Amino acid sequence: MSGNIAVLVGGVGGAKLASGLAELLPPRQLTFIVNTGDDFWRLGLKICPDLDTVMYTLAGLVDAEAGWGVAGDTTAALDSLEQLYGLEPWFRLGDKDLATHLLRTQLLRQGRTLTEVTACLRRRLGIGATLLPMCDADMPTRLDSLEHGELGFQEYFVKRRWQPTVRAIRHPNSAGARLTPAVNGALDEADLVLIAPSNPWLSIGPILAVPGMRRALMNLSVPVVAVTPIIAGAAVKGPTAKIMRELGLPVSAAAVAQYYDGLINGFIDDCRNEALPIAGLRCARLNTLMRSPEDKIALARAGLEWIESWTT
Amino acid sequence: MSGNIAVLVGGVGGAKLASGLAELLPPRQLTFIVNTGDDFWRLGLKICPDLDTVMYTLAGLVDAEAGWGVAGDTTAALDSLEQLYGLEPWFRLGDKDLATHLLRTQLLRQGRTLTEVTACLRRRLGIGATLLPMCDADMPTRLDSLEHGELGFQEYFVKRRWQPTVRAIRHPNSAGARLTPAVNGALDEADLVLIAPSNPWLSIGPILAVPGMRRALMNLSVPVVAVTPIIAGAAVKGPTAKIMRELGLPVSAAAVAQYYDGLINGFIDDCRNEALPIAGLRCARLNTLMRSPEDKIALARAGLEWIESWTT
Repeated sequence: MSGNIAVLVGGVGGAKLASGLAELLPPRQLTFIVNTGDDFWRLGLKICPDLDTVMYTLAGLVDAEAGWGVAGDTTAALDSLEQLYGLEPWFRLGDKDLATHLLRTQLLRQGRTLTEVTACLRRRLGIGATLLPMCDADMPTRLDSLEHGELGFQEYFVKRRWQPTVRAIRHPNSAGARLTPAVNGALDEADLVLIAPSNPWLSIGPILAVPGMRRALMNLSVPVVAVTPIIAGAAVKGPTAKIMRELGLPVSAAAVAQYYDGLINGFIDDCRNEALPIAGLRCARLNTLMRSPEDKIALARAGLEWIESWTT
Repeated sequence: MSGNIAVLVGGVGGAKLASGLAELLPPRQLTFIVNTGDDFWRLGLKICPDLDTVMYTLAGLVDAEAGWGVAGDTTAALDSLEQLYGLEPWFRLGDKDLATHLLRTQLLRQGRTLTEVTACLRRRLGIGATLLPMCDADMPTRLDSLEHGELGFQEYFVKRRWQPTVRAIRHPNSAGARLTPAVNGALDEADLVLIAPSNPWLSIGPILAVPGMRRALMNLSVPVVAVTPIIAGAAVKGPTAKIMRELGLPVSAAAVAQYYDGLINGFIDDCRNEALPIAGLRCARLNTLMRSPEDKIALARAGLEWIESWTT
């Protein structure tokens, strides 16, 4: 594939596909548009979990076992907050990881946009691909839960380990957000848009909720292809399947494809799933389970070959 | 000694006397008024080196060998800033130490004063004595150097390892500072004011430069006693002797006593020094070299006994 690819991506699952693509293609062809709905402030620091996961993955720094954070990190600073000052930090931040948050926060406080700061960080980390936050405004995801009412994303996801029952997902600040020139440009110049196998509701949903994003995707005349996060009735990791049940949806790739209805013209389903019964949607059935680096590259290669076969 | 003691104090040398006093007296009797002229912002964090040194010393956390920082600290965060992002951090901050800077900065950004934040930190660290910044305003010390013109304190002290030749020491922001109610109260209620054997020009000078401080000291009718930082023509540590030479002063306890002229009515000189030729100033000659915990307590005890002998 010789054209430009824009990838909508969230955290761990999406980062795996991102690393497969980065292994396969020259960095100038790749732009990752990353969910920032999970972002939050903690200890006066701006934390961007999904940007960091993609960034650490592409830089080869990621803790491979966890799928996020820096490999071999320690937690002396956060441990000291607890041991010396009695603050129980429910969100763990590694010491090496703190370097990222400190630098990002400092640059933001100097008045730079998150887009500019992210460009600075990824260049310093030697990442050639473009990394873009979905928007520059704060647009935190909030969840309406059965047990605890409205929760911030990290309170739901980390503090309560995504156990509360989700009734609705909201983006209350979306009115103040807009597509950045960088995201607009990446979509304009894309020869292909991929939606990574991230959680559609928690990770891709916020990106789609940025005002203008849905229309921008619908106006494209290039392939827009989503990769299923559901394999054999379950999510590989995280709360995707649980949330689908809570929202009254069948836990199936078909329900995911339906969620993206009107935005996508192609869908990469898993070979373990039953064939999709959705008319008018091009569909491939590939091995989407990425356990090894080879799996990631194989999925990226097979997916791109399939998409190329449409147009040639 | 049963009365209240207010101690003007800077960094390492002063903290030693502070720890001797804290071993000897109940915490409610002790108030430390600490130099904040060395404070600076780094990586978006407010760093207060002298407050931290006194605080870590009183909490029993200090790195005994260095005299500052937290014992057994690591530097993963700062190392990562250098290794991952290419930022050479000339000011080392330990990971455990970062906990302090993160918490302090967050509390300051919430609108609390440095006095309030310091009270919160020292209480959480289990320190019973009162710890006060000399003022709440930013009042950074600046140095006029022969080789590099004007330098910020940390640039002079840490980055250039106090090697530039000092021509003058300035407190350009002092007009915006004032004595806090807490400092005023501590002086009002003091039965004794001690000036610790900290660098008179770099550590005590800024405290004396807070508008109102000199007058407040001069109005006191209690003993105000300085301890010599000069022993046998040299400083125990740091640039005191070097600065005295650069300012055209003899490197002697007499020159230090002269610097405090009008403010002090007693002076604790070192037994190794020649007798002071200053008329009208009560003077003791004690062992002021604090190498061990026992030395610190012995100096505090002997000094207090001598001062008590004036009044009884």
